[in-house]
Amino acid sequence: MKNKIITISRQFGSGGRTIGRMAAEKLGIPCYDHELIERIAEETGFSKEYIEENSESSAHRSIFANAFTDRDRQGMSTQDRLWQSQRLVILGLAEKGPCVIVGRCADYILQDRDDCLKVFVHADMEKRAERIVRLYGESENKPEKRLKDKDKRRKAYYQYYTDMEWGEAENYDLALNSGTLGIETCVTLIEKLYG
Amino acid sequence: MKNKIITISRQFGSGGRTIGRMAAEKLGIPCYDHELIERIAEETGFSKEYIEENSESSAHRSIFANAFTDRDRQGMSTQDRLWQSQRLVILGLAEKGPCVIVGRCADYILQDRDDCLKVFVHADMEKRAERIVRLYGESENKPEKRLKDKDKRRKAYYQYYTDMEWGEAENYDLALNSGTLGIETCVTLIEKLYG
Repeated sequence: MKNKIITISRQFGSGGRTIGRMAAEKLGIPCYDHELIERIAEETGFSKEYIEENSESSAHRSIFANAFTDRDRQGMSTQDRLWQSQRLVILGLAEKGPCVIVGRCADYILQDRDDCLKVFVHADMEKRAERIVRLYGESENKPEKRLKDKDKRRKAYYQYYTDMEWGEAENYDLALNSGTLGIETCVTLIEKLYG
Repeated sequence: MKNKIITISRQFGSGGRTIGRMAAEKLGIPCYDHELIERIAEETGFSKEYIEENSESSAHRSIFANAFTDRDRQGMSTQDRLWQSQRLVILGLAEKGPCVIVGRCADYILQDRDDCLKVFVHADMEKRAERIVRLYGESENKPEKRLKDKDKRRKAYYQYYTDMEWGEAENYDLALNSGTLGIETCVTLIEKLYG
């Protein structure tokens, strides 16, 4: 397999985004993460905040509740329209050239390309809790609760739009435990597989 | 993490056993696969055929049916006794020195050791079907059916004795798609992580 695109799905707090950025830098290719949100905002007119909240995890209000309300004449919910735009932006970026894409079901959206290395990054609860408190600080909820909530929302979103199980090894070329392997080693493995 | 033991769980036909053997050879450490069966036979007096059939997948007769019959005075089924012996053999081998252990829930049995690299190997149905026909020949059942049956039995066995989901990325340090990455590359990655 000749890999041109790297997609990174990750558990919250696993360092997947950092791994994506570091790998992209070493390989000299762009990494799309927050940049994706800006592009989707330009394309759709949705606010960045709305996209941030709804582009890869089900919002506070359940995705399943959303599925039966707020439909337009084509039967699409606001979240469905966002999904469609996000899909087109990701397909377009992959067409443009080699890159790393973090999150947003890019692995599923690009599944028909055979030049795509699909990576999943995870780590145990303790390691992730330590990481989010160090990076994002304390909040009124315990870190374990913040992690569980975010994972649950990402999982629900992924399942709803892809009909696949988030975090199942079968869906990825490579799944890495950043907690036991370490961030640097994960970057090295991805780098090794590229090209 | 300093890895001393490598455990390999694998989907049937994914080449996980071959990857384990090749990695062990490159690292100059023993690989336990069929050897495990011989050791368990020596310890327990069970026949090799019985162990082969019952030591990592539920037998033809459902593991759940077994759970309620054939119990001895301690309330253990024959399969439970086999599990206990297999557990002790695997713990003993890990204690003895560096090695690769293929299958038999070794990842779970050795979960308290922090010198253990837990690997899962999978591949898509098409690649695995091609592989089992090439290696084991045709049989009266289609290769897809043979793969599904075997995976189902391994999954049920793993879940029954470990209370964890077989094939969930979270349970392993490294999960590899041998179909897209290739056997040689999988061996190289494992070799790179060892030591």
